[in-house]
Amino acid sequence: MKALVYHGPGKKTLQDRPMPVISAPGDAIVKMTQTTICGTDLHILKGDVPTCVPGRILGHEGVGIVHETGTGITAFKKGDHVLISCISACAICEACRKGMYSHCQSGGWILGNTIDGTQAEYVRIPHANTSLYKIPDDANEDALVMLSDILPTGFECGVLNGRVKPGSTVAIVGSGPIGLAALLTAQFYSPAQIIMIDTDETRLAVARRLGATGTIAVNGADTVKSIMMATNGQGVDTAIEAVGIPATFELCQEIVAVGGTIANVGVHGTKVDLHLERLWSRNIASTTRLVDTITTPMLLKTVETGKLDPLKLISHRFKLDDIQIAYDTFVRASETRALKVLIEV
Amino acid sequence: MKALVYHGPGKKTLQDRPMPVISAPGDAIVKMTQTTICGTDLHILKGDVPTCVPGRILGHEGVGIVHETGTGITAFKKGDHVLISCISACAICEACRKGMYSHCQSGGWILGNTIDGTQAEYVRIPHANTSLYKIPDDANEDALVMLSDILPTGFECGVLNGRVKPGSTVAIVGSGPIGLAALLTAQFYSPAQIIMIDTDETRLAVARRLGATGTIAVNGADTVKSIMMATNGQGVDTAIEAVGIPATFELCQEIVAVGGTIANVGVHGTKVDLHLERLWSRNIASTTRLVDTITTPMLLKTVETGKLDPLKLISHRFKLDDIQIAYDTFVRASETRALKVLIEV
Amino acid sequence: MKALVYHGPGKKTLQDRPMPVISAPGDAIVKMTQTTICGTDLHILKGDVPTCVPGRILGHEGVGIVHETGTGITAFKKGDHVLISCISACAICEACRKGMYSHCQSGGWILGNTIDGTQAEYVRIPHANTSLYKIPDDANEDALVMLSDILPTGFECGVLNGRVKPGSTVAIVGSGPIGLAALLTAQFYSPAQIIMIDTDETRLAVARRLGATGTIAVNGADTVKSIMMATNGQGVDTAIEAVGIPATFELCQEIVAVGGTIANVGVHGTKVDLHLERLWSRNIASTTRLVDTITTPMLLKTVETGKLDPLKLISHRFKLDDIQIAYDTFVRASETRALKVLIEV
Amino acid sequence: MKALVYHGPGKKTLQDRPMPVISAPGDAIVKMTQTTICGTDLHILKGDVPTCVPGRILGHEGVGIVHETGTGITAFKKGDHVLISCISACAICEACRKGMYSHCQSGGWILGNTIDGTQAEYVRIPHANTSLYKIPDDANEDALVMLSDILPTGFECGVLNGRVKPGSTVAIVGSGPIGLAALLTAQFYSPAQIIMIDTDETRLAVARRLGATGTIAVNGADTVKSIMMATNGQGVDTAIEAVGIPATFELCQEIVAVGGTIANVGVHGTKVDLHLERLWSRNIASTTRLVDTITTPMLLKTVETGKLDPLKLISHRFKLDDIQIAYDTFVRASETRALKVLIEV
Repeated sequence: MKALVYHGPGKKTLQDRPMPVISAPGDAIVKMTQTTICGTDLHILKGDVPTCVPGRILGHEGVGIVHETGTGITAFKKGDHVLISCISACAICEACRKGMYSHCQSGGWILGNTIDGTQAEYVRIPHANTSLYKIPDDANEDALVMLSDILPTGFECGVLNGRVKPGSTVAIVGSGPIGLAALLTAQFYSPAQIIMIDTDETRLAVARRLGATGTIAVNGADTVKSIMMATNGQGVDTAIEAVGIPATFELCQEIVAVGGTIANVGVHGTKVDLHLERLWSRNIASTTRLVDTITTPMLLKTVETGKLDPLKLISHRFKLDDIQIAYDTFVRASETRALKVLIEV
Repeated sequence: MKALVYHGPGKKTLQDRPMPVISAPGDAIVKMTQTTICGTDLHILKGDVPTCVPGRILGHEGVGIVHETGTGITAFKKGDHVLISCISACAICEACRKGMYSHCQSGGWILGNTIDGTQAEYVRIPHANTSLYKIPDDANEDALVMLSDILPTGFECGVLNGRVKPGSTVAIVGSGPIGLAALLTAQFYSPAQIIMIDTDETRLAVARRLGATGTIAVNGADTVKSIMMATNGQGVDTAIEAVGIPATFELCQEIVAVGGTIANVGVHGTKVDLHLERLWSRNIASTTRLVDTITTPMLLKTVETGKLDPLKLISHRFKLDDIQIAYDTFVRASETRALKVLIEV
Repeated sequence: MKALVYHGPGKKTLQDRPMPVISAPGDAIVKMTQTTICGTDLHILKGDVPTCVPGRILGHEGVGIVHETGTGITAFKKGDHVLISCISACAICEACRKGMYSHCQSGGWILGNTIDGTQAEYVRIPHANTSLYKIPDDANEDALVMLSDILPTGFECGVLNGRVKPGSTVAIVGSGPIGLAALLTAQFYSPAQIIMIDTDETRLAVARRLGATGTIAVNGADTVKSIMMATNGQGVDTAIEAVGIPATFELCQEIVAVGGTIANVGVHGTKVDLHLERLWSRNIASTTRLVDTITTPMLLKTVETGKLDPLKLISHRFKLDDIQIAYDTFVRASETRALKVLIEV
Repeated sequence: MKALVYHGPGKKTLQDRPMPVISAPGDAIVKMTQTTICGTDLHILKGDVPTCVPGRILGHEGVGIVHETGTGITAFKKGDHVLISCISACAICEACRKGMYSHCQSGGWILGNTIDGTQAEYVRIPHANTSLYKIPDDANEDALVMLSDILPTGFECGVLNGRVKPGSTVAIVGSGPIGLAALLTAQFYSPAQIIMIDTDETRLAVARRLGATGTIAVNGADTVKSIMMATNGQGVDTAIEAVGIPATFELCQEIVAVGGTIANVGVHGTKVDLHLERLWSRNIASTTRLVDTITTPMLLKTVETGKLDPLKLISHRFKLDDIQIAYDTFVRASETRALKVLIEV
């Protein structure tokens, strides 16, 4: 079968690989129909993810059709259309029992990381009973690819951890795909304001189209002052960090209101300053989270009933044979205006 | 009347001052019967609290008897025995409506800070309807002095923010009065383990007497390793920071389990490192809080019914005339083994 | 001044009455600009509310302008435009401290019940600091009249108690003004379905216009079966009872899903059957509540920012001089298609 | 093997039955070491549980040793000591995903009901990965038998649903084993009062020994009045119904305070009156629940660390050969003073 294989920093090839095989009763083999590229795939290609070794098939998102099932699979049968979760969950270990699938002792984020992933014609899914989701017959499968990772990530790490509420004020720092996913799902709770912050005016224009009530371009002017003016000098109830660098986490600390929450979504490579000398008395919560995908069933319902339209996140479409071009398009997002790029297998 | 007056860094005198007078309908004048000294009073005396200017009467804790009431006072009458909250709350502003009395627009921590305090024969209490608490007739008033500040602080900022639960594991970093207050109130929720950490063996001995299931003396050995051994290598569900320096906040980050909470109680004078490069994916919440004293009515009930014994926190007793000795005893705690020192007015 | 006075069952007159006067430091006198009529006013006129005695000025909703303030009023001054809450709250008593203003020891629902109300040119508001809400300068005051009672009632008793969530299924039994208020505010949480149930097709048509995803007319056909068909045989996660008779509470028990919630909003005059023989094992919560109006500040923000449009609930407008016609119109709602009738003072 | 077999109302025999066999990858065969008898077993013997047909081996509680495992079992191996949950949970279906194991689509309460149970030498456990719990090596296995059903039932249905809190007041109506299990676990949250109510003075004496702060014997005197006197006329914050008849549910409605919760634990055979004509405005929640056993891991920790001593619930011990005597002893509890009877297999 065809698969995109990682060969060390900067190197990947679309090549032929043997079909995956069932290796445990809980496994399923899924024939991929759609996949996509994640910012994390780019991290791997930079060599930032040591658990992902050369030879690995990349990718942890997608939808497909069940091709073969292990003896322990009771939730699916051959031919079922399924959504693949980026997180594999055994549902048995202590972490899974607490709903913290991201830290499953024998799962978590393993696809396209410690085991072969979804940017291929077939993929083996461990713990398939609780890591795949049956797709409704009339579903828009393109849309559902966005439910593998980006929408639950924006929702769980940003919106839920950020305690977005009706009437509250939200700032999302970073208007890339993950920030936009937080923007879309924050609207489930009808906050009074959602202010998107980015350096890129094009992305802010997208944000306005997707429901931002205000946008602030970081361009030398005083971002903090703008937020304060927009919030009667109070700052925001929820600041969602969707970039992953010290400067944006610093900004969140400056704009969060007394009693507010900083919800970190970004992947950080270095420590940051936490200004406890100022925050110790300000009743702030600050959270981190690797997506657990426990809200996937709920998100499926919101898509089904039209409360959430994930297609808004898709900017480009490619065939698997053109996946290298897809990567290139995704990498040069500021030029290509790429959000998520869909890859038909 | 006699009052302890702050005269700038390092200087305070017990001197004669005019009686306080009612200046708003919501005021009450309270004749003090007991007060105590807080770590924050020492901060003021170091010159670390610029809002507290020379000439201020110190103190924000105590019990007393209502001496005079403004025209708006409906909850108390002359002669009522009352507990004074360290936080004054108007109950009207947006912060108070949210239960965040600490950030009351015309209150918060003002006693012994921006207005005259409780280390005196009489004190004026603004917003008295919602800043005083009627004391039950048969109450042990010595014990209740501990409910002005230290017990709600340990409970709200440490235990509640730290989400202590039945069966969970807790570490409290710092075994001074505030750490011990967290220790006493953490037991309301029957955690499986409460491990106290301090450099001072004497304080750890007190902690064991007050209910710690384990203690760790920080003395060059590997504290983190000890915690990991005590928790099957998982770390603690709740790490309560009760010191207020970078090293102890650092320790909390090293010992908190995946999915856990760091509840900051300490007053910090400098920024700290937050290791997002490691924590971003570990589903951690970290909280700060100035005590709101919204749990005071509940704490009163636990004292009344014997679920909480605040007397355990009192190590020394003095008369108001000896308040300078009381301060001296409290400052030299490692020598004098002082916890809280009670001052009879 | 002109006022609508209750004279016993079936009797009310618009007549001249002396101006109200300040009787406590916490009082304010408000010059009414708009008021409205509530279903509860009709209950009083049927003689069902013994606490409301002849001679009482009716009404507990409205907006107006502060005319005079007691010495304890700090939150408002003469000339401020204010929303009047149907619930008066002292903010001091144990119930108020818990956010349960409805059971305030010296307040609760007293306006137009145990003290004179708002269907008059002026009204005295006790505990005004915490029972009035400042109206933003550019507010649509007609809309805000709906925030005195009906919208917080639908929201707190129906939506919040009913734990409406993104992706969940909701049935609202009763499509009168209060059911519609629940319908509008349920949408804050983006449930997958909101099914309105009523006997009156006209009201269901209104419900569809206001956001219902489905409607069921109770007309001899099998209502339960229809709900089950609409929910894959599961029943609804939230059943909101907005009528107040045994038959509708019975219906809620039949349509609620395992793990679901029945939120009672209706005013009941008689006991009902609770089918514990069937429900004991079905993990059901059932709640009652008199509106606390603690969400009024939040609701004001949702109106300000266009997340909630209360004008949709207003069907008719009258002058105070025509208030008897307004009552007549409101009583004959099935004929007149009245929802809420606005009365300009 | 020996097993206690149900033969229709009133009939059961200890007889020889074939060994159970693995029938699905998720099955495990457990060699029983201890079991016990539940009130529900008596219901079956009265013919009240139509799903349990003649020929069924009774029992749904116990501890044992893993004897054989299906190919899908990853959490246990032959020889492991395990606690058997009364609820079987697939961990895959929608109910299980929500933590509502009691309504698992292919599990729930099936042991000793729709499939053969634990009052035998061996038992087949479906969904064993998530329905068995590994027992710590040094555990007191007698104590852990109480964690199969009675303690999670009292805790989840009574204490958690009843929202017991530090400083709150609790009444438990019914001082049988299940009421006592609620009593023991309510103490995790340090309520100010736990008042036990029963007709049997002997059981109330046990309750006092197990931590009740007060007891009320229902014997013609005014029970409601006694509760009101004990709670300053307020009633209780939490009323736990642990009997299952209309009279006791009625009592709960009479003694619950404004803003309080009625948590039903009892198994009801008939409908009850719900006094909405009085409760509609009193901000009451009333809950039902079949135990989900999701707190079993947490309860195991509280037993391990000595926060909970289940042995207090065991009054008698028998061998499997004497199980008929054990039943007889358990049935005649008022005479024999039986609480839970332990049966060694």
